[in-house]
Amino acid sequence: MKLRFLPLLLLPLFSNAQSNVDSLFIKKMSDEIMTNGKAYDLLYELTKKIGGRLAGSPQAQNAVIWGKKSLEAMSPDKVFLQPCKVPNWKRGGNDFVAITGVNGEARMQPLAAFALGNSLGSNGLIEAEVVAVASFEELEKRKEEVKGKIVYFHSVFDPTKIQTFKAYGESGAFRRSGASRAAKYGAVAVLIHSLSTAPDNEPHTGVMVYDEAYPKIPAVALGPNDAQLLYALAKKGTIKTQVQTYGFFLPDADDNNVIAEIRGSEFPDQYITLGGHLDSWDVNEGAHDDGAGIVQTMEVLRVMKALNYKPKRTIRFVLFANEENAARGGKEYANQAKINMENHIFVIESDEGGFTPRSIGITASPAQFAKFQTWTPLLKPYGSEITFGGGGTDIAPMAGINKESILAGLIPDSQRYFDLHHAKTDVFENVNKRELHLGAVNMAAIIYLIDKYGVK
Amino acid sequence: MKLRFLPLLLLPLFSNAQSNVDSLFIKKMSDEIMTNGKAYDLLYELTKKIGGRLAGSPQAQNAVIWGKKSLEAMSPDKVFLQPCKVPNWKRGGNDFVAITGVNGEARMQPLAAFALGNSLGSNGLIEAEVVAVASFEELEKRKEEVKGKIVYFHSVFDPTKIQTFKAYGESGAFRRSGASRAAKYGAVAVLIHSLSTAPDNEPHTGVMVYDEAYPKIPAVALGPNDAQLLYALAKKGTIKTQVQTYGFFLPDADDNNVIAEIRGSEFPDQYITLGGHLDSWDVNEGAHDDGAGIVQTMEVLRVMKALNYKPKRTIRFVLFANEENAARGGKEYANQAKINMENHIFVIESDEGGFTPRSIGITASPAQFAKFQTWTPLLKPYGSEITFGGGGTDIAPMAGINKESILAGLIPDSQRYFDLHHAKTDVFENVNKRELHLGAVNMAAIIYLIDKYGVK
Repeated sequence: MKLRFLPLLLLPLFSNAQSNVDSLFIKKMSDEIMTNGKAYDLLYELTKKIGGRLAGSPQAQNAVIWGKKSLEAMSPDKVFLQPCKVPNWKRGGNDFVAITGVNGEARMQPLAAFALGNSLGSNGLIEAEVVAVASFEELEKRKEEVKGKIVYFHSVFDPTKIQTFKAYGESGAFRRSGASRAAKYGAVAVLIHSLSTAPDNEPHTGVMVYDEAYPKIPAVALGPNDAQLLYALAKKGTIKTQVQTYGFFLPDADDNNVIAEIRGSEFPDQYITLGGHLDSWDVNEGAHDDGAGIVQTMEVLRVMKALNYKPKRTIRFVLFANEENAARGGKEYANQAKINMENHIFVIESDEGGFTPRSIGITASPAQFAKFQTWTPLLKPYGSEITFGGGGTDIAPMAGINKESILAGLIPDSQRYFDLHHAKTDVFENVNKRELHLGAVNMAAIIYLIDKYGVK
Repeated sequence: MKLRFLPLLLLPLFSNAQSNVDSLFIKKMSDEIMTNGKAYDLLYELTKKIGGRLAGSPQAQNAVIWGKKSLEAMSPDKVFLQPCKVPNWKRGGNDFVAITGVNGEARMQPLAAFALGNSLGSNGLIEAEVVAVASFEELEKRKEEVKGKIVYFHSVFDPTKIQTFKAYGESGAFRRSGASRAAKYGAVAVLIHSLSTAPDNEPHTGVMVYDEAYPKIPAVALGPNDAQLLYALAKKGTIKTQVQTYGFFLPDADDNNVIAEIRGSEFPDQYITLGGHLDSWDVNEGAHDDGAGIVQTMEVLRVMKALNYKPKRTIRFVLFANEENAARGGKEYANQAKINMENHIFVIESDEGGFTPRSIGITASPAQFAKFQTWTPLLKPYGSEITFGGGGTDIAPMAGINKESILAGLIPDSQRYFDLHHAKTDVFENVNKRELHLGAVNMAAIIYLIDKYGVK
């Protein structure tokens, strides 16, 4: 063999050797997590001992104490709280919706219902005829009919969207802005079909936003079966419904991001952040949304300490406050990063449920993305690949915080998420231990690779 | 542009156009299944109106009648029964295992237990000391201790295996052959740790086989928590247990494969078979195992009829009898195929649960496999790719039935399967509608591609 060919031959050999080192270390992390992982046990504590933890609630405060204590027990270099003010919305009572008349005939048929988060109470019982529309276009066409009526938006999911987040994005518009769009034409309340994929009757709450230009009318999500019934009846005749809700705001409350940090050995000024959000809605245990992201974040810290991994870059493990109804935690994290002129190179969130992982979605330049994509073979044994596009509500304010910052998200299988998202069925029992832990494996793997190789 | 380059340019264009036709038709099938699919409703009927359906049981007979009627309602060219004899094992009573002594001190601590399928009853109460071993190697080393004792095999799953079927393959040896391996040295009964990934105490049954050379001793699977407890106690001291089981065989029963057929328009003598197995264990509803495969098979027929698809090749939709404890249905299907000299080109089974699909696994020659792999982009939008290696117990006898025959399997995500496989938790409520239907989409897609392009 001629010596001058050696460098060319050694190059791939070295690269394979590197890749082999990486694949062995990732397997080591995976074995540790799948064998001794604590994410599932921690999720039990968060969901069963603390429970639903809407910003401003006593449970949200308990969750901060629990999060800090649990992170400290894992012995990172430091754990600190990052205070922020959060909205303090209260449901205020048992939301009530009933069909009370069908074609002039009296009825009393209560419907499964949750007021939407941030919506204001009805201030007594409202009773009115229903105008049922399937789209904002139909609302515009029929705007003359709306005055004094209750508008029902038939905001069903498009079942043909295999990526359920796409369907959520579409139907979600009715939940977010339906109330003000209808109030503009004089509606007295709005009802929506829950943003759900489940073949059941559970109502799903979630955040809405009022347009300050119009009256702040009640906004309520109905259980899917009841919503289908109401829509079918309203298409055929004159339907009357009663609505009573109790939502109100107390003054903003004190909350905190809970942050653990391992200081980088080589590039301590380069920050890698991973996280989830500690808050949840009030109607469930917030097990998938986003207890899963919280305990996966903690598990990545645990496995690094268990394997005595010393990162080259500084790694932050963040339990964000108040994602659900204002994202103030995420905003404050970005705000402080700016004030402290921190160099954040990679920020990843897990907030799509503790389901079996399918990919790490990364939003990056084509050149950076091409580099990340070469890591797909390292993730594939754990169910993931590198795909384009990823982020999360809490980390969105970090976009463009400096020229290197890259946003990413753990993307689990999405078929089951909207069965229970914001419904009372989002409980510990509906999280699978192996799926949850496998998500943590993939988070750990991408953090390890980013720490080792950077983003350039 | 020089004309002589045209053919080269047209080739990929034509190929893209073809691929576009395929991708549009697959989307059409997917939209139909995800919107109007009946698999979930049919699964409700099979699990809730018929229930567990072990070969030889009245429910197994009801399932044949239901399967035939349901397939006929979908108007294929024909539906027929293919008779076969099946073993008729009965559990015979409520299996009983208890710890009755710890280091000479009396106790009465019943353990969650199911006798293994095909195991024979204890013929009264057996009480003996426990010899707990973690491997067959340990059994061989300690064989002198075994005479007159109850052997416990600590057949835990290896949690680090991300593909859970690999762990099942390993631990499964204890369930299948543990009894005779221990009886060889004089053991009076065997207990195993259930082949389970769940953090719970549900016992999991499943088939075992006696070696005719040794006494046919009782064989029982314990709930995971109880098995862990027993193992921990037995490592530290002297444990006594009682075992009572009641298994026995009645004479072989009459059963049937239920088969629907659409005759091919162009190559009617080329057969494509898809199927699942209609039987289940007696302790659950057989919802994932294998109600899912049954209703997915039916759904592929339904969608073809709904879209008025006329296959070029003959397609068989097979509900196999008696997979669980003897696979006689699968054997008879292959037997009849040989007798009738049918040319089977592709046989696929869905028998790994109704979970979100990850791939179509195909066992084929390298050249054939290379062709199939080009279809991955067509499956990817529905969660699958083409991977090497696939089949199923029912279709295994079809291997090599003629030189073209190719075996394949729908491979869903495997994280949750062994939580409930053969346990009483394998019920309708633990099947997700979208995941189940998405499996049918992928089955329909591969059948369409095989039908259109053949296997060469």
